[in-house]
Amino acid sequence: MINAVGRDIPAQLPGRAPFAGAGGKAGRASGQQKLLASIGDALDACGLADGGTVSFHHHLRNGDHLLNLVLAEIARRGLRGIHVAASSLFPVHAPLVEHIRSGVVGRISATYISGAVGEAIARGELSEPVRMLTHGGRARAIMAGELPIDVAFVAAPTADCCGNINGIDGRSACGTLGYALVDVRHARHVVAVTDHLVPHPASPAQITQDFVDHVVEVDSIGDAAGIVSGTTRATSDPVGLEIARTAAQVIEASGLLKDGLSFQTGAGGISLAVAAALRELMVARGITGSFASGGITSYLVEMLEQGLFRTLLDVQCFDLAAVDSFRRNAAHMEMSASLYANPATRGPVVDQLDVVILGAAEIDTDFNVNVTTGTNGVILGGSGGHADTAAGAKLAIVTTKLNAGGFAKVVDRVGVVTTPGETIDVLVTEAGVAVNPRRTELAQRLQAAGLPVVPVEALRDIAAGQATKPPAGIPSCGRVVAFVEYRDGTVIDVVRAVQG
Amino acid sequence: MINAVGRDIPAQLPGRAPFAGAGGKAGRASGQQKLLASIGDALDACGLADGGTVSFHHHLRNGDHLLNLVLAEIARRGLRGIHVAASSLFPVHAPLVEHIRSGVVGRISATYISGAVGEAIARGELSEPVRMLTHGGRARAIMAGELPIDVAFVAAPTADCCGNINGIDGRSACGTLGYALVDVRHARHVVAVTDHLVPHPASPAQITQDFVDHVVEVDSIGDAAGIVSGTTRATSDPVGLEIARTAAQVIEASGLLKDGLSFQTGAGGISLAVAAALRELMVARGITGSFASGGITSYLVEMLEQGLFRTLLDVQCFDLAAVDSFRRNAAHMEMSASLYANPATRGPVVDQLDVVILGAAEIDTDFNVNVTTGTNGVILGGSGGHADTAAGAKLAIVTTKLNAGGFAKVVDRVGVVTTPGETIDVLVTEAGVAVNPRRTELAQRLQAAGLPVVPVEALRDIAAGQATKPPAGIPSCGRVVAFVEYRDGTVIDVVRAVQG
Repeated sequence: MINAVGRDIPAQLPGRAPFAGAGGKAGRASGQQKLLASIGDALDACGLADGGTVSFHHHLRNGDHLLNLVLAEIARRGLRGIHVAASSLFPVHAPLVEHIRSGVVGRISATYISGAVGEAIARGELSEPVRMLTHGGRARAIMAGELPIDVAFVAAPTADCCGNINGIDGRSACGTLGYALVDVRHARHVVAVTDHLVPHPASPAQITQDFVDHVVEVDSIGDAAGIVSGTTRATSDPVGLEIARTAAQVIEASGLLKDGLSFQTGAGGISLAVAAALRELMVARGITGSFASGGITSYLVEMLEQGLFRTLLDVQCFDLAAVDSFRRNAAHMEMSASLYANPATRGPVVDQLDVVILGAAEIDTDFNVNVTTGTNGVILGGSGGHADTAAGAKLAIVTTKLNAGGFAKVVDRVGVVTTPGETIDVLVTEAGVAVNPRRTELAQRLQAAGLPVVPVEALRDIAAGQATKPPAGIPSCGRVVAFVEYRDGTVIDVVRAVQG
Repeated sequence: MINAVGRDIPAQLPGRAPFAGAGGKAGRASGQQKLLASIGDALDACGLADGGTVSFHHHLRNGDHLLNLVLAEIARRGLRGIHVAASSLFPVHAPLVEHIRSGVVGRISATYISGAVGEAIARGELSEPVRMLTHGGRARAIMAGELPIDVAFVAAPTADCCGNINGIDGRSACGTLGYALVDVRHARHVVAVTDHLVPHPASPAQITQDFVDHVVEVDSIGDAAGIVSGTTRATSDPVGLEIARTAAQVIEASGLLKDGLSFQTGAGGISLAVAAALRELMVARGITGSFASGGITSYLVEMLEQGLFRTLLDVQCFDLAAVDSFRRNAAHMEMSASLYANPATRGPVVDQLDVVILGAAEIDTDFNVNVTTGTNGVILGGSGGHADTAAGAKLAIVTTKLNAGGFAKVVDRVGVVTTPGETIDVLVTEAGVAVNPRRTELAQRLQAAGLPVVPVEALRDIAAGQATKPPAGIPSCGRVVAFVEYRDGTVIDVVRAVQG
């Protein structure tokens, strides 16, 4: 068989087609062809249809403009039943409620939902139950084809016309892009939206052009000041500080406070106070940790720069100091959501964690934790990395006050299980420390160190005694408005519509 | 249905299994479990069987020790018919010949083969035809499932026990790991072999632990001095320098010598002399280029540091100066083989190339180029990125002397087509410049600039007149010992066994 360069290709190469021409130079995809005039043009180019799935990442947190811009364009096109697969939703995304009501949005999946959208879901405004995932479980589902994405939108603080993207330059700089890294590799179409278009090639490139179909320039993808949302300062409340000091003592007594320590904490007030207390201990003992991971705050940046940790593994910068550090410090490394927490990989970072400090809306006597709903049953959060890090870390510590807003936080049974109790090791409160009965050796260590170890039931009793409002309990009726998916894809609990 | 945390999961969630437990903390994969005592243990752990495929990357080039170490272990285990899927093979890999003869190795695929292995293949010692790919085509085939890999071996200059890898530290530092990046994401098993094991987490991490199954420490993965193999100095030969100066004039006359210029050149003597000549022109004209790409040499590093290019896009460091630059310069960026050249992505870097300078063992009057075989028909190279960059670049220039070793290099028909003539724009020789007839506008520009434009047939005639040996021509008989796969997976030519 003679091919397009006149060569005789023997038939002995079964299944192999002969060369038919290189397509010449003309018509070759040029970077300029990726640049579209508007988000609407990108939606058209991707062929988004009714029932399609669009994904978003939340590095701009409550400062994000992109999700609302895209949904407004989708609504303008008259599309119906769209699945919004966001890594997280914040109060800024309240316009989604109107899109739910109008039928433009028919499904939602996310790892964390706060604000008006969570309230609307809890009221039952969305007919299809929301899929609540963990960060690692979302990455797993996307990579396994269990969360197919038609169009992944990237809020790109800096991009070039070919789709090379970074998060360190531009007025909306958010640092790492760890959640988006998974979406762009598995979505059928990828659209980068930027307010800082630079000449090709953008440098550095955290996401590269080989994964990006279209690039759109807009006035603003977000408000970088909104990256700092929620609590990102250590608590100054004396009770909270006491809990934090106790938690640091638990770490020391556990035997894990030694060179190579790896550590993660959230951005809540008590969690950050634990970081501050741990820092003092590490300085006093001359300890150098290996890494701190997760969402990164200025507290952890200071510890890196002080030499208390060798590296930071950052899936998302929680404040602008972290963004700046990611720009400057080579040891401040980006990690994808999959590297962070996906249980189906060859080893996520959470599996190397020594200690994680976790919060709780409620925790029960089985050590099950709820960070999904409030005592009124409304969705006000979700796992994020809560269940992932609890499962991976050698020592998963929940810190909480016994009561909040008149409600007991240590209860018989949490309203919704976000994180299974078997993965929680210690509960630290202002009235004592409870150790999971599965961890007898750990309990002995804490007792030997003089820590106030008490049965979790004792903490429940004190909390109940101090409560001024009755426990909410588990709603047993009401339509299922969300299901809580554990990191392996199984259903760990459901959220039911709030009554009334 | 009651799940493992005692929650009643309604049957209304079809296809979703109830939570069955987190698996506790015990038995969780720890990084230490990835660390194996030997390459043999890793082969056992991966379950490599007869006929299996092992892949290698060639960043250590002729200094690589790993492929030989692995094949020796495979032979010791008595395995048969193994497929060696190497990105490239060098003279250092001569022990493969014995493994071919003994039946341990039954198949080979590579983008480039030089040394004893190419000679053995040309003699017909391997019964199965070798698959010769392009860099972009290899990435495409791996990602499309057309080149399945059982075990990908990574020669890791630095690694930790969990499999985080970088190429910048350690005595075998080779810089970027662009070819390995594709293999590790698609292989069924990934083994990192290192001679520089560092505490977790290695920083930076060019390959991360989520892709690595096993880590093995050995005495030496290679000899970094061997990275510099083949020609990596500009020619000092007057004829070569004249060709290089002419090529630079062609670039200028083409209209592409302007701000934003993107450029690639190989590491051959004339190619590097073109870079040097281009550099003078860029300085004289005050031009700032956007990027230089491909394998990176000290010449391009100097141009980066001189501000003549804004960035380097580096799939492989060609010398130790490039390794050092990659360590130091943020604008010296790693690119995967897929980002570099895979035609099935959303846009490889080769599509943004303005100018590429290419070599040729032979070029014919259809502008087809052979860089696969020598005039004696022996395999002495292969496409590497030759066909990829020619297809992508706006201006693909082949530079060559008319004759070498008594043979004409500009011929009627090349012995083997590596790169189709339709993708080659200009041939520059010491006797004049030939422009592909498809590019009439370019020919007019070069003529207007006073360049010695002649028909390619004229160059062929001069070359024939100067030749002291008869043209080799196209072997028409002889068993097919290799097929040359174009970047899209079609067969552009075959290599037949040498006679005698």
